[in-house]
Amino acid sequence: MRKVAVIGIGQTKIAENWDKSMRELAGDAILAALQDANLSTADAFFTGNMMSAAANNQQNLGAYITDWVGSRGAESIRIESACSSGSAAFRAAVLAVASGEVNIAVAAAAEKMTDSPGAETTAYLATAADADWEVDHGVSFVGLNALIMQRYMHEYGWNHSDFANFSINAHNNGIHNPSAMFHMSISQEGFDRSPTICEPITLLDASPIGDGAAAAIIVPLDNAFISADHNPIIVAGSAAASDTIAVHARKDPLWLYAAEQSAKQVYAQAGISPREIDLFEYHDAFTIMASLSLEACGFAERGQAPRMAIENEISLQGRLPVATMGGLKARGHPVGATGLFQIVEVVQQLRGQAGANQISNARFGMAQNIGGSGSNIITHIMTNVI
Amino acid sequence: MRKVAVIGIGQTKIAENWDKSMRELAGDAILAALQDANLSTADAFFTGNMMSAAANNQQNLGAYITDWVGSRGAESIRIESACSSGSAAFRAAVLAVASGEVNIAVAAAAEKMTDSPGAETTAYLATAADADWEVDHGVSFVGLNALIMQRYMHEYGWNHSDFANFSINAHNNGIHNPSAMFHMSISQEGFDRSPTICEPITLLDASPIGDGAAAAIIVPLDNAFISADHNPIIVAGSAAASDTIAVHARKDPLWLYAAEQSAKQVYAQAGISPREIDLFEYHDAFTIMASLSLEACGFAERGQAPRMAIENEISLQGRLPVATMGGLKARGHPVGATGLFQIVEVVQQLRGQAGANQISNARFGMAQNIGGSGSNIITHIMTNVI
Repeated sequence: MRKVAVIGIGQTKIAENWDKSMRELAGDAILAALQDANLSTADAFFTGNMMSAAANNQQNLGAYITDWVGSRGAESIRIESACSSGSAAFRAAVLAVASGEVNIAVAAAAEKMTDSPGAETTAYLATAADADWEVDHGVSFVGLNALIMQRYMHEYGWNHSDFANFSINAHNNGIHNPSAMFHMSISQEGFDRSPTICEPITLLDASPIGDGAAAAIIVPLDNAFISADHNPIIVAGSAAASDTIAVHARKDPLWLYAAEQSAKQVYAQAGISPREIDLFEYHDAFTIMASLSLEACGFAERGQAPRMAIENEISLQGRLPVATMGGLKARGHPVGATGLFQIVEVVQQLRGQAGANQISNARFGMAQNIGGSGSNIITHIMTNVI
Repeated sequence: MRKVAVIGIGQTKIAENWDKSMRELAGDAILAALQDANLSTADAFFTGNMMSAAANNQQNLGAYITDWVGSRGAESIRIESACSSGSAAFRAAVLAVASGEVNIAVAAAAEKMTDSPGAETTAYLATAADADWEVDHGVSFVGLNALIMQRYMHEYGWNHSDFANFSINAHNNGIHNPSAMFHMSISQEGFDRSPTICEPITLLDASPIGDGAAAAIIVPLDNAFISADHNPIIVAGSAAASDTIAVHARKDPLWLYAAEQSAKQVYAQAGISPREIDLFEYHDAFTIMASLSLEACGFAERGQAPRMAIENEISLQGRLPVATMGGLKARGHPVGATGLFQIVEVVQQLRGQAGANQISNARFGMAQNIGGSGSNIITHIMTNVI
């Protein structure tokens, strides 16, 4: 496999972007990324998206987007793996360039969710779960996460209040990210008083959906396009793994097997241990997913991740900064696009372009994107060490 | 790029498979392909599908399918590019193995369409066209193809009757394919009397939708798993190209630019000319698409493809056998799965396993899969010449 690097990034603000169509949103992110890389087009486009068939009556996003950004003719497909669609598109682009068949690839991801009624969105999000054995029995996606969180609190003795700092930290970091959906801090008291969505999950455990798009340009490391200007960030590790789609079918519903498997692979590929990760963009769709991700990736002992939050090890100055630009909780969670926002943020940190949220001397950044209730997990390690 | 080969194939019968769930259909094809390759699992799964969100309330097919076939843990994503989803999944698997990151890949494709009401299916198929500029104005997918066919007949002076042999040939070939949806011949008279769907397209110009799944196992050519038993068929060329999603935005709506571009690339990769292609599995969703595909790939002059049908050059004994196992017209068109049926059929021919439909001494087989009204076209050349 030839080594590949990211030489351009782009993102839109995550919001209720009612004034932009799906193609405008995706196009804005892609054109920004191409401009960042001093390119006008690319050979192939890989676009992650989960909801557009229902929310926008539009599939075939490949051709739809490529034409819009002025790259008519280029190879262009859509990738879907529920909430991990964004990083799946990034990995598909990485493999295409690594194979030698594609020289300049765009990995993009876009989601436009807020035009649809909420009930419809909830039903459509549930297509990430098992239609026969979960959804038909009435459980929603928040419901599945609530069952997991309830069991976790019971098993390891945590109170709901102990999860507060995952959300407080994310909101603190989101304040300085212009692309973030929320620019406000929250308090422990606010967290504790937050209304219940599905016990024990409250509003402030949960990330908000939104409209947004992000993109990255991927080329071979030895490509002539790379100059000092491009500030190339290397893909040091890329791996994907799956678990059962239904949570009840797992031996241990409190362990993200696919997170563990994909993390082990990227550590081996990058030749580093978890200790050397300088920042971690994790998938904090709910505070319970933040906890399980930290444990499966080797950053906390089983059942002990809330302690990292309580002791503030996850802040920008802590042992392992997470959600450095707001995470899913404050940056927002446009489901199929989230994975590429994570990649863009890791690149910003490794380039030293993270502004007020800059992690000093960051060398290795990790991003982990979770599809379904842990059924499809994709992990990347990026580095500025050539 | 390291060379890759197909060492296993599997397919279900295309029908109204009401007794099988989506996962059973996909699983039947994948398990048959794994068995054909003497394998029990694979490293990564790439599944093409267009309709499952609407037709089966199920997305996240990656994890859904991997768990079902006993490969829990393996990387697994879904690829969508409308009717070309099947070959897009095959190409993604080819690139993943070519990159060196994946050693055994399953390319699968599945579609379960006939549980849904017809009007819903028509609406959902239209998500392959431009939602804003085509579908919102009321045109269906058949309607778009009818507009193209009308213009083609006007421009080049053909009568509807001249297209008959595309369908007659497909039905002749489907008779001996156990997986085909239809096992009956049709006549010129029957074609001419066929009821109009959308002028000038009649019932016998159009391929039928159906439920079905197909799969192929892809490994590096130098892989230890390959033995004489495996009868490896090499991927000699793989390319994808796009065009505008909206037909009216094209300079020439009678020319499949993306077919021409992807065909040129695979000829160059395989080091052959169109003359050396021994069989061609084309995308005869409608007889007009069969015509345009033959012209764009260099098998007929512009506007002259119907002559190939009239002079029977496309039969099993002709200059260029097409739709050798029935094509979309008689084998059936489970939209997102069709591309992999085409690959499976090319492999059958190159292995000498095509039974009564065997093309003698076939060395190079081509498959072309069209997404949208020509917006996303993926072409492969396979060979048994090592």
